[in-house]
Amino acid sequence: MQPIKWEEGRLLLIDQTRLPHQEDWLSCTSYREVAEAIKTMQVRGAPAIGIAAAFGLVLGAQEYAHLQAQDFQQKLQEIAAELAATRPTAVNLFWALEKMAQVVDELAGQNPSLIVRELERAAGQMLAEDLAINKQIGNYGQELFPSPARVLTHCNAGALATAGYGTALGVIRAAHAAGKVQQVYASETRPLLQGARLTAWELHREGIPVTLITDNMAGYLLQQKMVDLVIVGADRIAQNGDVANKIGTYSLAVLAHANSIPFYVAAPISTFDFNISTGREIPIEERDPREVTCLMGQSIAPEGVAVFNPAFDITPAQYITAIITEAGILRPPYGEGIAALRSEKGS
Amino acid sequence: MQPIKWEEGRLLLIDQTRLPHQEDWLSCTSYREVAEAIKTMQVRGAPAIGIAAAFGLVLGAQEYAHLQAQDFQQKLQEIAAELAATRPTAVNLFWALEKMAQVVDELAGQNPSLIVRELERAAGQMLAEDLAINKQIGNYGQELFPSPARVLTHCNAGALATAGYGTALGVIRAAHAAGKVQQVYASETRPLLQGARLTAWELHREGIPVTLITDNMAGYLLQQKMVDLVIVGADRIAQNGDVANKIGTYSLAVLAHANSIPFYVAAPISTFDFNISTGREIPIEERDPREVTCLMGQSIAPEGVAVFNPAFDITPAQYITAIITEAGILRPPYGEGIAALRSEKGS
Repeated sequence: MQPIKWEEGRLLLIDQTRLPHQEDWLSCTSYREVAEAIKTMQVRGAPAIGIAAAFGLVLGAQEYAHLQAQDFQQKLQEIAAELAATRPTAVNLFWALEKMAQVVDELAGQNPSLIVRELERAAGQMLAEDLAINKQIGNYGQELFPSPARVLTHCNAGALATAGYGTALGVIRAAHAAGKVQQVYASETRPLLQGARLTAWELHREGIPVTLITDNMAGYLLQQKMVDLVIVGADRIAQNGDVANKIGTYSLAVLAHANSIPFYVAAPISTFDFNISTGREIPIEERDPREVTCLMGQSIAPEGVAVFNPAFDITPAQYITAIITEAGILRPPYGEGIAALRSEKGS
Repeated sequence: MQPIKWEEGRLLLIDQTRLPHQEDWLSCTSYREVAEAIKTMQVRGAPAIGIAAAFGLVLGAQEYAHLQAQDFQQKLQEIAAELAATRPTAVNLFWALEKMAQVVDELAGQNPSLIVRELERAAGQMLAEDLAINKQIGNYGQELFPSPARVLTHCNAGALATAGYGTALGVIRAAHAAGKVQQVYASETRPLLQGARLTAWELHREGIPVTLITDNMAGYLLQQKMVDLVIVGADRIAQNGDVANKIGTYSLAVLAHANSIPFYVAAPISTFDFNISTGREIPIEERDPREVTCLMGQSIAPEGVAVFNPAFDITPAQYITAIITEAGILRPPYGEGIAALRSEKGS
């Protein structure tokens, strides 16, 4: 399952708002379409929106390649700003656009068509690397699984959230390949049901045993020791190991802790924000109330009722047993290990 | 709002599966219709199903009043068993049928038509008393509210779950009347959305400020100290104070505890099961997987995916700050206070 493809100068995205019942592909030919796809969550998942935004910049560069070098670079900055403004929480979006900006900076003053080519090459490399990174995260992470393992995951940190294979679901895939996975419980993840629509779909079609629950059942499973470990992805990780991830993650971490069940986070190094010290500095996106009050186009609440709809929450590092990256497994206290990642990455 | 009415020998129930968009009333003329309404949750809420079952027995008694005394009593036992088998977790159902059985026993051998009249009187009294009990719970409970209070509740322990006024929502109503309620957060309560459909509807129509959230957002609100207290109802309470209530209650209790926020349970004495020592003895109902995979008749998950659908969970007494009853407020350790209730009740 590869949800993002670059073919003949167009960005193809599987429309994640239509899954699991329809497998529609969007064909984006402008950066505006890519920005819209990110905002509406037709493409979602921290690594995936980073890669999509990178290709969005390529599409923008193609469109304005006729401009003079200076105007062209100015325009690219505007496009990058527009792509960056689509969603506030996942840091991979900004990381990817920063990588692309470096390519532009290194070629400053060069012919726009050369810059377009180099941007296209850089985005393609990001796509290929993300897949390799996820496989590496899977290799490291599966070592943490007992056998047989009963696993709880939240939202979708799967192939659909990345260039393919997935972070948390990548670890589950690797553990399944190693014969260790007895059962995966997927929490449905209201309001947009990424667990029910995406995670259940990804795992079910590959024959990995998956059982769907509503979000409020997870605590019961943990209390009843029906789960050996919890594993989730991340949208941003602070220097101290605090993790921003899909709303509901914090609750699972507290409930896992209360029941002495390990809680793991799987994420590439691009998810770490080396500029902030704790999770308190991470902005939490609030989304349209209709995501809560309307389901499949039908109203489920009284007309006019107020809604609060935060899309993410922050899990304090104290609740996280380990963070699995492509460079290895970090254990608490996380400060030192994360600082070492930063030097490794040279950022 | 009175969701259960007895008029001219028929039981009228507001159809809770159609709210908030349709206010349909079921008119039950046989005990079979009442049993079906309980099973399908057209009437739900621990006190409400007890009262509905009591009137169900009245309807059954009317139907078989032509039988000889002995056959009549035998038939009543069969009907009571059928009504008792509708749902396993809430104890008020068994409590109400037990009260009705006592009426029958006391009149053993009497004319069936006399027994019908006395059963009708007893059920009517139960309905009236439940309303009075809820008002008393409200009076006691509102004392626990700070002013202004931001309150989180789960599922629907409201007028709709009782003869009227409600248990947890009764306390909120009393606190609102006392000018103390700044905001009520209602968690939507998947799978059947009693929070979104019923609690939001009850409070919104009375002008009590209510904000709807998904279940997995509650932890975030507690962590961010956006809530001063949590209050819920109960389906069964064990001798040690363990509480069975709608799935997700346990999670809220653990999350409230982790954030030093008080967690209250409001329930009438009929919710206590004096025959069991801890929550481990309470059977947890598992319901149809389609409640999870279908929403408003539309599928939200891949075809054929496995589902786990427990309808209740057990909150250990250690997480409960106080239990509010019509006889006053119980504080931990609960054993002694609950034993005193038992003697008071004389059961």
